Amino acid sequence: MPFSTTAQVRFADVDPAGIVFYPRYFEMLNGAVEDWFAQSLGVDFATMHLTRKMGVPTVKLEAEFAAPSRLGEVLAITVQPGTPGRTSCPVTIAFSNNGELRLRVNVVLVCMDLEKHRSMPWPDDLRNALTAQAEVAAPA
Amino acid sequence: MPFSTTAQVRFADVDPAGIVFYPRYFEMLNGAVEDWFAQSLGVDFATMHLTRKMGVPTVKLEAEFAAPSRLGEVLAITVQPGTPGRTSCPVTIAFSNNGELRLRVNVVLVCMDLEKHRSMPWPDDLRNALTAQAEVAAPA
Amino acid sequence: MPFSTTAQVRFADVDPAGIVFYPRYFEMLNGAVEDWFAQSLGVDFATMHLTRKMGVPTVKLEAEFAAPSRLGEVLAITVQPGTPGRTSCPVTIAFSNNGELRLRVNVVLVCMDLEKHRSMPWPDDLRNALTAQAEVAAPA
Amino acid sequence: MPFSTTAQVRFADVDPAGIVFYPRYFEMLNGAVEDWFAQSLGVDFATMHLTRKMGVPTVKLEAEFAAPSRLGEVLAITVQPGTPGRTSCPVTIAFSNNGELRLRVNVVLVCMDLEKHRSMPWPDDLRNALTAQAEVAAPA
Repeated sequence: MPFSTTAQVRFADVDPAGIVFYPRYFEMLNGAVEDWFAQSLGVDFATMHLTRKMGVPTVKLEAEFAAPSRLGEVLAITVQPGTPGRTSCPVTIAFSNNGELRLRVNVVLVCMDLEKHRSMPWPDDLRNALTAQAEVAAPA
Repeated sequence: MPFSTTAQVRFADVDPAGIVFYPRYFEMLNGAVEDWFAQSLGVDFATMHLTRKMGVPTVKLEAEFAAPSRLGEVLAITVQPGTPGRTSCPVTIAFSNNGELRLRVNVVLVCMDLEKHRSMPWPDDLRNALTAQAEVAAPA
Repeated sequence: MPFSTTAQVRFADVDPAGIVFYPRYFEMLNGAVEDWFAQSLGVDFATMHLTRKMGVPTVKLEAEFAAPSRLGEVLAITVQPGTPGRTSCPVTIAFSNNGELRLRVNVVLVCMDLEKHRSMPWPDDLRNALTAQAEVAAPA
Repeated sequence: MPFSTTAQVRFADVDPAGIVFYPRYFEMLNGAVEDWFAQSLGVDFATMHLTRKMGVPTVKLEAEFAAPSRLGEVLAITVQPGTPGRTSCPVTIAFSNNGELRLRVNVVLVCMDLEKHRSMPWPDDLRNALTAQAEVAAPA
């Protein structure tokens, strides 16, 4: 079962047409990925960035916007990794409200050494956590 | 006792110096005011803006930044109104972490008719709710 | 030749790792699309949204992040439409700095009737402008 | 004469009520302060933060919102320092459109050593530049 969290559509997120301005979805997405790392993969972003000097920038992103979201709605967000590569990992994030899909996003995250400014192999703890979740998600 | 809620310092909120970029505090503040209206004053922002065609823009704001906030911290936010005027209301919002004050903000909100684009007297439900909370806050 | 504009990487755009936080690229992208509509397609966003009650939400988006961008850099942004469909249009937006590609994004915009909340055929002025630019871009 | 620059009200800046969402003003304000440092005080933010390891966080802020701003407007922004103290400096920033004041903000900036995480005396180049501009602004 994928990791799940929520985000509320705030006044700050909504455009003059009354719907979420799409760059705000990516802020919510980044917040969901932070929650996923902290609550499910075992490393919070502060520790990862500031102590371990690692980042996980997005190098590729595909999004389909299925239906608009409106002020006050609480969006359910699921985060599902695929099998990690040596230095990268595909992740699918879906936003929905009352079972209606709003947005599906496929990203590729890369494990980055923030001091050398280049990609690095996933450390064992993260690789193991990602692999475990990817396996759980595999079809029988 | 003032209304209280929380906000987590996200990656999106933090600047290159490692601390919250202050305009983000005002987005958190606006989110806290949304929670206060919905959970404590009895009117959520979607209903207020879209159905009742009312807004509560900020016409005055004073902020003192007492100490910086960092990635991953969960900030406690309190919202305390003063006695409402005919069309406006002073509100004090304080952010803290583990009892350390980070930011205190005094704002004046104005009740605005979004169709006539001008201020309007507080409707009874909001005036009563604001007054009740202001009274509770008054010293004995 | 595609429409081109620029955006400066501001302190507000940069994350704790010292590079542009990617949701900010989409705000820059939206700004470039606004400039393109106003300066090249002949309709500014205020007139389009508020007077003509039309929007152009993004329904699909693919981005590849080729290299990071840093505080203070001025990014060159090009906007190139493909041939418009009845209600939608593919557009490619590229960000570069000193000839180095930073980000390439393919989006699909949809022409939206903001009062009926559904897609509508491109009005003639926009269809003609998009078609003219798409033709110019075609290889010989 | 105070330093002046402009900011355009973008789709990203405007709320469901059709006016600038006020936290966005503070992003514009920060952009104007960046322009002022780079173009008028002689130190750009990238050099200041990344090479000289100095920041200028805001420790106090007072804003009065005189009139709303709307999508597509180009706002004139002026930046006027007062006499600098040892480690801080008051600065007044005003936003207007066609001579109509929209927003006046008084901030106090503090010169911060980003490595020691504490305030530091203004370096001579900045103190001299600030003092020169403050003197010019003084009434006869």
